[in-house]
Amino acid sequence: ISVWDITPEIKELIKTSGMKNGFVNVISRHTTTAVMINEYESRLIKDLKDYFLKIAPPDAKYLHNEIHLRPETQEDKRRVLLNNWDINDPAVLEAWRSQEPFNAHSHLLSMMLGNSESIPVSNGELAIGQWQSVMLVDLDGPRKRTVGIQVFGT
Amino acid sequence: ISVWDITPEIKELIKTSGMKNGFVNVISRHTTTAVMINEYESRLIKDLKDYFLKIAPPDAKYLHNEIHLRPETQEDKRRVLLNNWDINDPAVLEAWRSQEPFNAHSHLLSMMLGNSESIPVSNGELAIGQWQSVMLVDLDGPRKRTVGIQVFGT
Amino acid sequence: ISVWDITPEIKELIKTSGMKNGFVNVISRHTTTAVMINEYESRLIKDLKDYFLKIAPPDAKYLHNEIHLRPETQEDKRRVLLNNWDINDPAVLEAWRSQEPFNAHSHLLSMMLGNSESIPVSNGELAIGQWQSVMLVDLDGPRKRTVGIQVFGT
Repeated sequence: ISVWDITPEIKELIKTSGMKNGFVNVISRHTTTAVMINEYESRLIKDLKDYFLKIAPPDAKYLHNEIHLRPETQEDKRRVLLNNWDINDPAVLEAWRSQEPFNAHSHLLSMMLGNSESIPVSNGELAIGQWQSVMLVDLDGPRKRTVGIQVFGT
Repeated sequence: ISVWDITPEIKELIKTSGMKNGFVNVISRHTTTAVMINEYESRLIKDLKDYFLKIAPPDAKYLHNEIHLRPETQEDKRRVLLNNWDINDPAVLEAWRSQEPFNAHSHLLSMMLGNSESIPVSNGELAIGQWQSVMLVDLDGPRKRTVGIQVFGT
Repeated sequence: ISVWDITPEIKELIKTSGMKNGFVNVISRHTTTAVMINEYESRLIKDLKDYFLKIAPPDAKYLHNEIHLRPETQEDKRRVLLNNWDINDPAVLEAWRSQEPFNAHSHLLSMMLGNSESIPVSNGELAIGQWQSVMLVDLDGPRKRTVGIQVFGT
């Protein structure tokens, strides 16, 4: 688990856009990342990692991690095909399986921590409290990740 | 627990509305459903059910499930009356109690999984990642449920 | 943990604003509060308190609660200074430490319960279900708290 304070990037985008009143939608674009608002303090971030890995242990038994049994259904298969893995070809199926991470716990934590926040902007300022930061939480990384930030207003 | 991928319905609504740039607000309209964004994969969905029922077991002791002690306060009573159960009538009180489900764990999980998501739309496309789906999670079902979907933009 | 039903204030604000169609963004402005939507029922609120204090016990060992070791990094120090505590002065450092609460569990629960909700408004009515209330959850109080409510629409 790695945690990134993305508040500076959001503030920069607000400034660049020139928006004075409106809001920002921030959205996670991966199924094993999350977006949340809290205090970015070193020791708390370590507590976060310890705590969430304890309540959803990476090495517990999860069906999602039995990758050799996936895709399980026709619908699962359809989705993998849609994402450009031609798993009708056994070699591609094997390649797809071998790059799939053992990350069921990361998915569960992403569900728990949440994937979007809408944050008001007033007079060009992000309306969060003095100790609040908007963070991207990488629950299966660190890897190269993207986050969606949309400004909306005037 | 049952889980529904509602992304197709959301995409259809965006198309019908003709909106090109803006966002979609998706909101749970029940106290025992949740709205979340993650990967819709059969085995992960089973993990989700196992995991969340394990951390909030249906058969643990919850005050909310002692239905014969409800409504507990005047305020609780007022809310039941407002929802058209005339529980001043003992027969109606009995009827209300007998249809109340034992679902405290469903409420707790709904709080944990969250009830609204705001998702940007750009060039008519929902701005989610390739493996992300928007899902309605029925934590006390399956039953007939509704979900709120609002498009906002131009 | 204390829980406040803020739906009446939100409805009042919608009425005052005259907005008929749009939405409301509700945001927690503290790192140990949360905003959520669920049923406001006395016994369920007690279950909520019991349950969340059980899964994140206040008296477990958390690094964030070892206040004598904070700020740990230069970045942590910079943030405290930015918030107007001149902790380069040993007396102020002591004063800052002595007012810091032991509330790591409150932060973790705030992350879990979430900090913003976007709720559609249609024909001047908040589009929530009959048993749903919007609540502010104070995970480290009760104290005097604020909540952000933004109406957006026409």
